[in-house]
Amino acid sequence: MPTKPSKELETFVNPHPGRDYQIQVRIPEFTCLCPKTGQPDFAELTLTYIPDRACIELKSLKLYMWSFRNEGAFHEAVTNAILDDLVAAVAPRYMRLVADFNVRGGLYTTVVAEHGARPAHLG
Amino acid sequence: MPTKPSKELETFVNPHPGRDYQIQVRIPEFTCLCPKTGQPDFAELTLTYIPDRACIELKSLKLYMWSFRNEGAFHEAVTNAILDDLVAAVAPRYMRLVADFNVRGGLYTTVVAEHGARPAHLG
Amino acid sequence: MPTKPSKELETFVNPHPGRDYQIQVRIPEFTCLCPKTGQPDFAELTLTYIPDRACIELKSLKLYMWSFRNEGAFHEAVTNAILDDLVAAVAPRYMRLVADFNVRGGLYTTVVAEHGARPAHLG
Amino acid sequence: MPTKPSKELETFVNPHPGRDYQIQVRIPEFTCLCPKTGQPDFAELTLTYIPDRACIELKSLKLYMWSFRNEGAFHEAVTNAILDDLVAAVAPRYMRLVADFNVRGGLYTTVVAEHGARPAHLG
Amino acid sequence: MPTKPSKELETFVNPHPGRDYQIQVRIPEFTCLCPKTGQPDFAELTLTYIPDRACIELKSLKLYMWSFRNEGAFHEAVTNAILDDLVAAVAPRYMRLVADFNVRGGLYTTVVAEHGARPAHLG
Amino acid sequence: MPTKPSKELETFVNPHPGRDYQIQVRIPEFTCLCPKTGQPDFAELTLTYIPDRACIELKSLKLYMWSFRNEGAFHEAVTNAILDDLVAAVAPRYMRLVADFNVRGGLYTTVVAEHGARPAHLG
Amino acid sequence: MPTKPSKELETFVNPHPGRDYQIQVRIPEFTCLCPKTGQPDFAELTLTYIPDRACIELKSLKLYMWSFRNEGAFHEAVTNAILDDLVAAVAPRYMRLVADFNVRGGLYTTVVAEHGARPAHLG
Amino acid sequence: MPTKPSKELETFVNPHPGRDYQIQVRIPEFTCLCPKTGQPDFAELTLTYIPDRACIELKSLKLYMWSFRNEGAFHEAVTNAILDDLVAAVAPRYMRLVADFNVRGGLYTTVVAEHGARPAHLG
Amino acid sequence: MPTKPSKELETFVNPHPGRDYQIQVRIPEFTCLCPKTGQPDFAELTLTYIPDRACIELKSLKLYMWSFRNEGAFHEAVTNAILDDLVAAVAPRYMRLVADFNVRGGLYTTVVAEHGARPAHLG
Amino acid sequence: MPTKPSKELETFVNPHPGRDYQIQVRIPEFTCLCPKTGQPDFAELTLTYIPDRACIELKSLKLYMWSFRNEGAFHEAVTNAILDDLVAAVAPRYMRLVADFNVRGGLYTTVVAEHGARPAHLG
Repeated sequence: MPTKPSKELETFVNPHPGRDYQIQVRIPEFTCLCPKTGQPDFAELTLTYIPDRACIELKSLKLYMWSFRNEGAFHEAVTNAILDDLVAAVAPRYMRLVADFNVRGGLYTTVVAEHGARPAHLG
Repeated sequence: MPTKPSKELETFVNPHPGRDYQIQVRIPEFTCLCPKTGQPDFAELTLTYIPDRACIELKSLKLYMWSFRNEGAFHEAVTNAILDDLVAAVAPRYMRLVADFNVRGGLYTTVVAEHGARPAHLG
Repeated sequence: MPTKPSKELETFVNPHPGRDYQIQVRIPEFTCLCPKTGQPDFAELTLTYIPDRACIELKSLKLYMWSFRNEGAFHEAVTNAILDDLVAAVAPRYMRLVADFNVRGGLYTTVVAEHGARPAHLG
Repeated sequence: MPTKPSKELETFVNPHPGRDYQIQVRIPEFTCLCPKTGQPDFAELTLTYIPDRACIELKSLKLYMWSFRNEGAFHEAVTNAILDDLVAAVAPRYMRLVADFNVRGGLYTTVVAEHGARPAHLG
Repeated sequence: MPTKPSKELETFVNPHPGRDYQIQVRIPEFTCLCPKTGQPDFAELTLTYIPDRACIELKSLKLYMWSFRNEGAFHEAVTNAILDDLVAAVAPRYMRLVADFNVRGGLYTTVVAEHGARPAHLG
Repeated sequence: MPTKPSKELETFVNPHPGRDYQIQVRIPEFTCLCPKTGQPDFAELTLTYIPDRACIELKSLKLYMWSFRNEGAFHEAVTNAILDDLVAAVAPRYMRLVADFNVRGGLYTTVVAEHGARPAHLG
Repeated sequence: MPTKPSKELETFVNPHPGRDYQIQVRIPEFTCLCPKTGQPDFAELTLTYIPDRACIELKSLKLYMWSFRNEGAFHEAVTNAILDDLVAAVAPRYMRLVADFNVRGGLYTTVVAEHGARPAHLG
Repeated sequence: MPTKPSKELETFVNPHPGRDYQIQVRIPEFTCLCPKTGQPDFAELTLTYIPDRACIELKSLKLYMWSFRNEGAFHEAVTNAILDDLVAAVAPRYMRLVADFNVRGGLYTTVVAEHGARPAHLG
Repeated sequence: MPTKPSKELETFVNPHPGRDYQIQVRIPEFTCLCPKTGQPDFAELTLTYIPDRACIELKSLKLYMWSFRNEGAFHEAVTNAILDDLVAAVAPRYMRLVADFNVRGGLYTTVVAEHGARPAHLG
Repeated sequence: MPTKPSKELETFVNPHPGRDYQIQVRIPEFTCLCPKTGQPDFAELTLTYIPDRACIELKSLKLYMWSFRNEGAFHEAVTNAILDDLVAAVAPRYMRLVADFNVRGGLYTTVVAEHGARPAHLG
């Protein structure tokens, strides 16, 4: 597996497909550029999903996040786009992405997007 | 876009209208004047909404909040009025505004107002 | 309005009766006397309500709380009695009072009383 | 009332039986002995209940808790037994006991037992 | 009972089978090896269950957790496998295992697996 | 010993006069009245001292603090006056009093007064 | 005394000039304008001093701070200027002012200025 | 070594007597009885020392602390007495004992006693 | 002034050179690349200095920090190099730089470098 | 460089030997075995040093710490032994090692050892 930024998300076979269980990954080192000003933006992402047939390989997830480092991205658009990419990669039973952006102009923005219905029995 | 206080709220097209996703903006620097005494009041506002066709542009939101700096405003009235302005600007699927005012006379007041029904699948 | 302890609760007209919104007031400086020993008791009260036609005026609420300073009051009884007084004053759509008393004899007591059904769409 | 350990739980008449209100008592100084090794165990108990006709008198609750100081008691058994004693004493509409034991062998154990159905409108 | 790592889980008879009560054990000292690199991984596990006929004996639980110290284990697989072992040992009415792994590559992973439906009346 | 407010401070013989050791008492329930407005003031006091021949008896300290409940007292004056009373009662080798008053008019005031030189070897 | 913004600082006679004691006032509601952009700046000030003949009257301190609300002020200059004004008003034995400004451009700035030598025996 | 309460403190040879290093042991489960009322008292002790020829064996320290469980002990006296016992057992180069007692009568008491001069180069 | 990454540090004249006062800037958004692996590193920097004739202009400081975004930099070397650049730009009476790097390989590294002697009278 | 446990500590040339600067590494994943019982012990180590000619390479530090995973080690001895190894490897101007062990038998032990005199100008 390479160690440079990449949009390729690798997966592995869900080791326990018979159970609806939850995987959560907190990613405190997301950074991209503001499309208006070109200046760096920073966010902490939290990904939560219930796998179906596949799980997301963590090293490739790290490289995927790194791939945004020098790209311009609006808060609302990039959160939805990342969720779309992750859903396409593993076709989960449920997935949620929370993007908690650093303060800009005295405002703290958080975007929350979901795919599928949140199961009642998971937190 | 100007950089002075303004009641004008600018918007942009929702980049992902096919999904019910949530945007939250924390605004810790809201200040207005007490209509009785003329003295400054301070609050932290937290705006949460699910956009429909439009999202609130953040710089104009900052200037809108600034426009209250030298206006008199009662806690209960101003929270409802700001919610009304924001609803009028973006016609969201759901919106909530929490206004957490600084202590006055030993009392800490928080006002919470909502527009539309809170979706069960969002926190 | 006077500035001495008073059981009189003043009100003002709800500025936005068309909306079910929530007002919360945290009151960390409540003190009364223990009816058994005469010694001081201390509590932090948290009042939460949805106004109907009237809201509670905050200065009179402060003076009302002050009026218990030299009265004897059992934890369970005084929490319910204050809730009754506040309900009588503003006839709210919903009201809750939480009284969190300071430790006595190694025990920390909290009493929670409600009037009306808590609306599902408010926290 | 005595000031020595006692299994006697005193009660007083519920001052507001017409309302379903909640009383919570946090008891951070519970200690008993391990029945296997004889060594001291420590726990923080949290009692939550909705009184019916009677409330638990706090000083007798303190003496009741003290009565376990030199008794052997397994975590799971003692939590259920205390709940049974308290239910027998005041016949509450609802009661819950949480026992949060100090670490033993690197493990932190918490036992939660309830009597009656938790009312939806109380936290 | 031995004091060396062991996959044997000992149990004892549930002292109060007539009540649905909850036992929670926090296990902050879980460590195993990464199957890819052979390097140590660390996690805090939190086990929550409602016993039926049997409870898990705590010392044997500690030795069971110790048995993973020099075994290779993927995050998702080991969480599900431990849950399976614990379910097999005590046949609980409900059980949940949360595995909160230490940061690797800037990512913090938590896996949550459940057996049976979470009862509404327990937290 | 009485259980009503009293300016009498009782003492007991220092059990270990051969050692310079420190006693600290945190008193979170101090309340008096504002001399200007008559309204209640609240503070948390922290007393730290190195006893010489006598120590302060704690129950009398509690009653002494209670004696200010219905007295008018300015922040700066009352802190110094209490320190003077305590020094007169036990003639300590060193004493410090910190009075941390609740917010008034948006301002949080803390007054610190000392008697004698703080020993370098104590924190 | 007026209740409008004012540069006049009122004082009162130090009630205990024979002792070097410390007064600290935390002022979380300071706001002024950025001289470059005209936009609001916010800071929490903490004033610490040892009075000589006079103490600062708190209400006038509040009105003094309010007087900066619509003035332009650079961080470094305004901190030193306020310290100069306060020193001129009460001629303290020692004084320190800490100004902790809200984030701007991702940077959090704190300015600390002192008048006189900090006494070793005060914290 | 026994597993019952004991005043015997066992020691072992300092493995590195050529270096002034510090050992700190936090003991959150200390409990004794109030000599006046017979009721339980609770404290968290923190022992800090620089060993000379001997170190304190931890299991015997635990049994020593357990030996106070059913003894009457005043706060100031017991802190000094424990320090004396520990100094007698290991003759340290320096030792400090902090006893942080649970709240009684609204007062939180902490006693700090030292043996020898605190070295400047250790925290 | 440009709004792109730049090694140019702008300064302004110290508004109060007659006083030794302290300026602290916390910079939570520093990121560079690991010279070995090319992968992103993240750190929070805290700059503290006493200005002499000049102060650092904040916007240029932000752009200076941004200039490291795509440069390789070892922890120890880059902390010292940034301190050297800042000292060269404003010739401060004292300066300290703390670089608190995010976890890598389970290790959390912090580097602290100073220029000049830390004044005893500042914290 | 290998990726298996190793007592070999690699170093690199200090990039800024002309300055006394401080490097701190927090190591939360240290684990060894108890020499008496063979059971796992866990600690968080914090290493602080001022380099002279060499710095410790971080990957080799991680592998060095890993090498204790299956070795028996007493708290006091292992802390001093690790400090000796690290001093031998880089001959620092100053070094301190803090080992904060997990609770055992209700006791929390921390060992602090130093090499050389702590410089007054560093925290």
